[in-house]
Amino acid sequence: MASQFPSYKYFNLTFPHEYVAHVETNRPDKLNSYFEAMWLELRTIFKTLSDSPDVRAIVFSGAGDRAFTAGLDVKAASQGLLGPQDGKSTDPARVATQLRRHIDEFQDCVTSIERCEKPVIVAMHGIAYGLAIDLSVAADIRLCAKNTAFSVKEVDIGLAADIGTLTRLPKVVGNYGWVKEVALTARVFGAEEALKVGFVSGVYDTKQETVQKAVELAALMASKSPVAVQGTKELLNYSRDHSVKDGLRYTGVWNSAAVQAKDVSAAVLSGLEKRVPTFEKL
Amino acid sequence: MASQFPSYKYFNLTFPHEYVAHVETNRPDKLNSYFEAMWLELRTIFKTLSDSPDVRAIVFSGAGDRAFTAGLDVKAASQGLLGPQDGKSTDPARVATQLRRHIDEFQDCVTSIERCEKPVIVAMHGIAYGLAIDLSVAADIRLCAKNTAFSVKEVDIGLAADIGTLTRLPKVVGNYGWVKEVALTARVFGAEEALKVGFVSGVYDTKQETVQKAVELAALMASKSPVAVQGTKELLNYSRDHSVKDGLRYTGVWNSAAVQAKDVSAAVLSGLEKRVPTFEKL
Amino acid sequence: MASQFPSYKYFNLTFPHEYVAHVETNRPDKLNSYFEAMWLELRTIFKTLSDSPDVRAIVFSGAGDRAFTAGLDVKAASQGLLGPQDGKSTDPARVATQLRRHIDEFQDCVTSIERCEKPVIVAMHGIAYGLAIDLSVAADIRLCAKNTAFSVKEVDIGLAADIGTLTRLPKVVGNYGWVKEVALTARVFGAEEALKVGFVSGVYDTKQETVQKAVELAALMASKSPVAVQGTKELLNYSRDHSVKDGLRYTGVWNSAAVQAKDVSAAVLSGLEKRVPTFEKL
Amino acid sequence: MASQFPSYKYFNLTFPHEYVAHVETNRPDKLNSYFEAMWLELRTIFKTLSDSPDVRAIVFSGAGDRAFTAGLDVKAASQGLLGPQDGKSTDPARVATQLRRHIDEFQDCVTSIERCEKPVIVAMHGIAYGLAIDLSVAADIRLCAKNTAFSVKEVDIGLAADIGTLTRLPKVVGNYGWVKEVALTARVFGAEEALKVGFVSGVYDTKQETVQKAVELAALMASKSPVAVQGTKELLNYSRDHSVKDGLRYTGVWNSAAVQAKDVSAAVLSGLEKRVPTFEKL
Amino acid sequence: MASQFPSYKYFNLTFPHEYVAHVETNRPDKLNSYFEAMWLELRTIFKTLSDSPDVRAIVFSGAGDRAFTAGLDVKAASQGLLGPQDGKSTDPARVATQLRRHIDEFQDCVTSIERCEKPVIVAMHGIAYGLAIDLSVAADIRLCAKNTAFSVKEVDIGLAADIGTLTRLPKVVGNYGWVKEVALTARVFGAEEALKVGFVSGVYDTKQETVQKAVELAALMASKSPVAVQGTKELLNYSRDHSVKDGLRYTGVWNSAAVQAKDVSAAVLSGLEKRVPTFEKL
Amino acid sequence: MASQFPSYKYFNLTFPHEYVAHVETNRPDKLNSYFEAMWLELRTIFKTLSDSPDVRAIVFSGAGDRAFTAGLDVKAASQGLLGPQDGKSTDPARVATQLRRHIDEFQDCVTSIERCEKPVIVAMHGIAYGLAIDLSVAADIRLCAKNTAFSVKEVDIGLAADIGTLTRLPKVVGNYGWVKEVALTARVFGAEEALKVGFVSGVYDTKQETVQKAVELAALMASKSPVAVQGTKELLNYSRDHSVKDGLRYTGVWNSAAVQAKDVSAAVLSGLEKRVPTFEKL
Repeated sequence: MASQFPSYKYFNLTFPHEYVAHVETNRPDKLNSYFEAMWLELRTIFKTLSDSPDVRAIVFSGAGDRAFTAGLDVKAASQGLLGPQDGKSTDPARVATQLRRHIDEFQDCVTSIERCEKPVIVAMHGIAYGLAIDLSVAADIRLCAKNTAFSVKEVDIGLAADIGTLTRLPKVVGNYGWVKEVALTARVFGAEEALKVGFVSGVYDTKQETVQKAVELAALMASKSPVAVQGTKELLNYSRDHSVKDGLRYTGVWNSAAVQAKDVSAAVLSGLEKRVPTFEKL
Repeated sequence: MASQFPSYKYFNLTFPHEYVAHVETNRPDKLNSYFEAMWLELRTIFKTLSDSPDVRAIVFSGAGDRAFTAGLDVKAASQGLLGPQDGKSTDPARVATQLRRHIDEFQDCVTSIERCEKPVIVAMHGIAYGLAIDLSVAADIRLCAKNTAFSVKEVDIGLAADIGTLTRLPKVVGNYGWVKEVALTARVFGAEEALKVGFVSGVYDTKQETVQKAVELAALMASKSPVAVQGTKELLNYSRDHSVKDGLRYTGVWNSAAVQAKDVSAAVLSGLEKRVPTFEKL
Repeated sequence: MASQFPSYKYFNLTFPHEYVAHVETNRPDKLNSYFEAMWLELRTIFKTLSDSPDVRAIVFSGAGDRAFTAGLDVKAASQGLLGPQDGKSTDPARVATQLRRHIDEFQDCVTSIERCEKPVIVAMHGIAYGLAIDLSVAADIRLCAKNTAFSVKEVDIGLAADIGTLTRLPKVVGNYGWVKEVALTARVFGAEEALKVGFVSGVYDTKQETVQKAVELAALMASKSPVAVQGTKELLNYSRDHSVKDGLRYTGVWNSAAVQAKDVSAAVLSGLEKRVPTFEKL
Repeated sequence: MASQFPSYKYFNLTFPHEYVAHVETNRPDKLNSYFEAMWLELRTIFKTLSDSPDVRAIVFSGAGDRAFTAGLDVKAASQGLLGPQDGKSTDPARVATQLRRHIDEFQDCVTSIERCEKPVIVAMHGIAYGLAIDLSVAADIRLCAKNTAFSVKEVDIGLAADIGTLTRLPKVVGNYGWVKEVALTARVFGAEEALKVGFVSGVYDTKQETVQKAVELAALMASKSPVAVQGTKELLNYSRDHSVKDGLRYTGVWNSAAVQAKDVSAAVLSGLEKRVPTFEKL
Repeated sequence: MASQFPSYKYFNLTFPHEYVAHVETNRPDKLNSYFEAMWLELRTIFKTLSDSPDVRAIVFSGAGDRAFTAGLDVKAASQGLLGPQDGKSTDPARVATQLRRHIDEFQDCVTSIERCEKPVIVAMHGIAYGLAIDLSVAADIRLCAKNTAFSVKEVDIGLAADIGTLTRLPKVVGNYGWVKEVALTARVFGAEEALKVGFVSGVYDTKQETVQKAVELAALMASKSPVAVQGTKELLNYSRDHSVKDGLRYTGVWNSAAVQAKDVSAAVLSGLEKRVPTFEKL
Repeated sequence: MASQFPSYKYFNLTFPHEYVAHVETNRPDKLNSYFEAMWLELRTIFKTLSDSPDVRAIVFSGAGDRAFTAGLDVKAASQGLLGPQDGKSTDPARVATQLRRHIDEFQDCVTSIERCEKPVIVAMHGIAYGLAIDLSVAADIRLCAKNTAFSVKEVDIGLAADIGTLTRLPKVVGNYGWVKEVALTARVFGAEEALKVGFVSGVYDTKQETVQKAVELAALMASKSPVAVQGTKELLNYSRDHSVKDGLRYTGVWNSAAVQAKDVSAAVLSGLEKRVPTFEKL
């Protein structure tokens, strides 16, 4: 199946299971730290996977033993987002405009994970700082190895995190005091603490086991009706940002088409006949 | 007191304690599974209890040993929501309209639990699949027996849950990754896991003990000022769906009438005199 | 530094650490219970600290061994909010207007803690009833001593809590069933339960240790860039009340100015040189 | 067609044109003023018409020469909403609860016009005071005879209008200063002024002509695809209360089912063949 | 009555009619242009009038023949909002913080007109530039003399208007293209155009006549029940910013107390007896 | 300047004035009707113009004498959005998914006009049906020739308009009844009616004059500070979709950077010196 997909420069794309894609940040010698070309490519990949009828669930991890990602690359930090806008204006209002456009684009790349119509499971290990949090909270489910060291690192470099952590983390985790503490101090926290507050859903002994569990979970989701799975992701994300009243109404309209899928009878029938259903692509 | 209430066809209605009503789904031979006439009657009951000045708190459970409810009845699934709309249009847009109206009505019946002005405590046991989750998240507090087996079952029949689970569950439970996992996989989870993530507030050894604890909790609430209790339910539900700013404003307007209740002096005085206050009906 | 601040009548204001202010309710003989002049003064203090460039983080606690605060003073309850509006109208609509204005003002005083641009850490001990919850959920982080006894006490005096608890507590704690239970029953809960549900972030043996830990945490935050810390508080509070889409947009606009701070290069450089950065006041 | 509909006590229901229903308030000797049984019946009628596949557009007017409606009946005003709640509590908080429930029910009856899935055109004449405004702004289009005298009358009886005028009128009319003026003074305004500010869409010489124009307009709408017309009403009402972003998203989901209607090819084909299309019922 | 009010430095406060206050900007030699001390005092005045039971409606105008207000004083522009923050930081992020706090305070002063619980009628004449628009759209009703020259002037000094015009003007006027045109070009428009688009509700020959009409309108409002009038203002402002659903709910809660006013029976009775009702103060 | 821009296939791009771009739909032999490749290219053009520092305002019109645009091309209608999804699924749920993705993409292309940071003025003439309305309401200002014939045409082909008209038109025009009437009947309306309801801001004798006026208006905007103009567009669009409270806050944060522009002193100084200011590019 992989043959239909192009090769990517900064990411490995493999298919460890039917309908399951595995995206791996591939810059292990630099602790998988990111610069602009990488997040632009990441958006391209997630858009492609979102549209592909051959993909029903996605695992996202980082290559190498040391880091899911150490966050922004230092050079990127000093040249792109933060550094001198060479040849550009020094007028603070114009610098602000350049920065706002830059942040918008960066945010949009990270949001491509959330916008992806298929569920995304992040498998983390080692260093998971800064952008690691932004990326993982845009995904649906987070798993990690027990050696993972997390940090909302931005205040340590004089910044309020702006690529998604401050917006999404409080909606992922049900402990607002904890979110404020880790965001206001940038202190490192480990896998057990992440599990306890609900930031990750499972902790495993090694990176390999973590990725393996993520693939198994993705495979399980991929075995279900894609109409049901993709609808469920959409409706949960919609409900996060709307009132119950609005959520119910949107759900009713959404399902007025979705419930007409043949998947329903296929699922019910195969349930009665105790066999595995197959579903048309989506 | 029961004499003032009619008998219901699919539910038992009893009054185990002063001001406490107990609604029990009564179709144990079918695992308390639901069909349309049942949820229509459920709405009638909760509307009646909401309006009755003789009721201050409500317990909701299922008859028999095996299930709180196994969810939608198979026939309902194949005839009503999902099945052929016999004699009706086959035009996908018209089918969608019929389905949307059907879902709206179904949602409204489940929402009658939330709309009920008195607090509702759900006591669950045994099988609690699909609609069980929709019903319980529309209530205020959830308790369960340790043998309870929960599942957001809908993706297993090719559906995104549409009667409230996807809208309300993420606002009940503070672990969004966990919500996504159980909703996207339909896996069964038990009482301990439900307690850990905050879906239920207590786990008890048996169904009987669970219902007993629910009645005790309801009786405790029923002993408080009904103006205070009903206001608290309303303001908490309002706050869930609005900003802090809007919530404070609504609270101020609400209490500008409620604080004029005689309950305040009644409560303060009986506190000073160390006796149990009584409150006028509401 | 303290010399620049006036003395306050009902609160002690000290500076236990560079850039850290400590506000202490000082009415220990009355269990630090509040009346109107106190919350008006509290607002003045938090407005002053919010504006002062010499303050970067704040600890808030109560004097004496027995109580963080027992809530509203009985006299206040019977004279102000609840009591006869002597000389005033008895027309229920006019009484409602007076009450609404009174509640608005009271809410605004409590909200001054949330509006304060610097992070606020509450250190609680002993009795923490009623208003104690309203005050603490307007802060950013809550710590407590293991002897703390909490209660959302209002229903016990015939009231739905209206100074912030019902609006903010469900957004602080990720267990909605638990919030409903404690708000609808007014039952007392202890430090361990508060920790488990995420209402507090840490429990310590004594009041002294709790305050000490709060000061250390505040000092840690005060050592970071004030642009980053104050931005992080603002963006987290904004995100609580808005959709992810709106949150990201606001964040981008906010940071388009904030990222131009010299703090970024100061932080990055001192990180490389392994020394402690200093930041211009804000 | 009328044979399938029951007779109503306070309203005439006729069918002046294929697929067009005409609802007429029938209490001309009392200037079509309303009491509770009337608005309850009005809700029943609009629910029935909303569901009937034989109805595609609705005209709403008042019987007799003198008034569309003079608003609330004086007896209703003194006995129901406003008067002594005989046998009921005199506790201001309990009276408030009764009033709130009463207002909710009343609002819901008026909202049945907005909730009706078919477009509703109001044809007004003569006196159109108080409730006349509430009713007409819940409809889609307003026409009037040149003798119509309008008034947001409520402040003249010591009330802020609460059945919909203050909520919907500013969203109907694009002149907020004008809305405030007429609502804060209760002054009478005429047909020309109503036309100028966009409150009505057309002014006609007589009541008869006004009703006739309304029927013609309804007939024109009834000749279009009911999928298209009902979708258009729903999407316009949704957009009124949501951001453009949310409106576009909801529209896309709605039309993903609606566009599958056979009506599209039927309309396009009959357009090419220059004949009148017919559409399946809805 | 005036004796109970202090004198103000930059404004004349008179009482041209029972229950009617008249606030007049009093800096005619400088075309009533504003600097910071003025808008701070304006907030004080409107807070005082809002709270005073002796005031039921307010007229706001400018002294002298030449201008309602020419907007910001040039010195204010060059020293306060816009000029060098002398002795203050030059760090763009810190300058941004100072500016944001300054704008917040300025906005809050203008918003005091909207927050005032009594209706405010603005009477304009002559030059009405920049801040004139911000001030007038925070009021309820706008009248003007035919010589009035309006301009959303800010783009002409390199600014997007930030004290309320861009937020409120589109909600006051029902012609969004017109709003964009005048805000993006800063072109001057006259009284007739202002009337046509609904920005003002009436145009009069002279300033004197305009003020006279404003006083008459205020007197008319002041003759109505203050419970009804103040509720109407509140509910109209609330509805502007909320969905119909939320607006109806808030209205129901608001009126559950307000409808208990004695004003209702007073108004109805005096109506029957054809005499002028009197209402208790509020 | 044009040399820096590529040629486009379906549009003419010219620069009739310094900083003013003119985009012209160039398919006059087909009445400028649109198919998919065209709206994709339109998005590319508006993205390019939005980013170009050489463009400050944009005019958008249609080539030829007969039509601004007649809307969707018939072939597009029958093959793309509406027609058989050849080789694709016939499952109604899967068709719905394809349609939803298609509509999303189409909407996003039209929204590129709104998202463009520079003001866009539409100059219309002749036939302006269907998509013509969707396109024009995404722009800032609408002008038209007196021969223009408008129609919200979609119900005539069995559709509820879904590319923006139903969402944006009611927010552009202050006459909701009129919007409903034209959207529910698809009737053609002319230039004078469009002017009267505020849909267009000006009507001119010929297409040439209309375009000329649009260019003049664009040139006027282009002569102002681009920081001020682009901020004004952003803040007006933001305010349309948010409460006044949120709008003021966003405005304050936005201007905290924008006010630091050198444009302010440049504008003020050149005003004093009575010469034309020049502003740095943006």
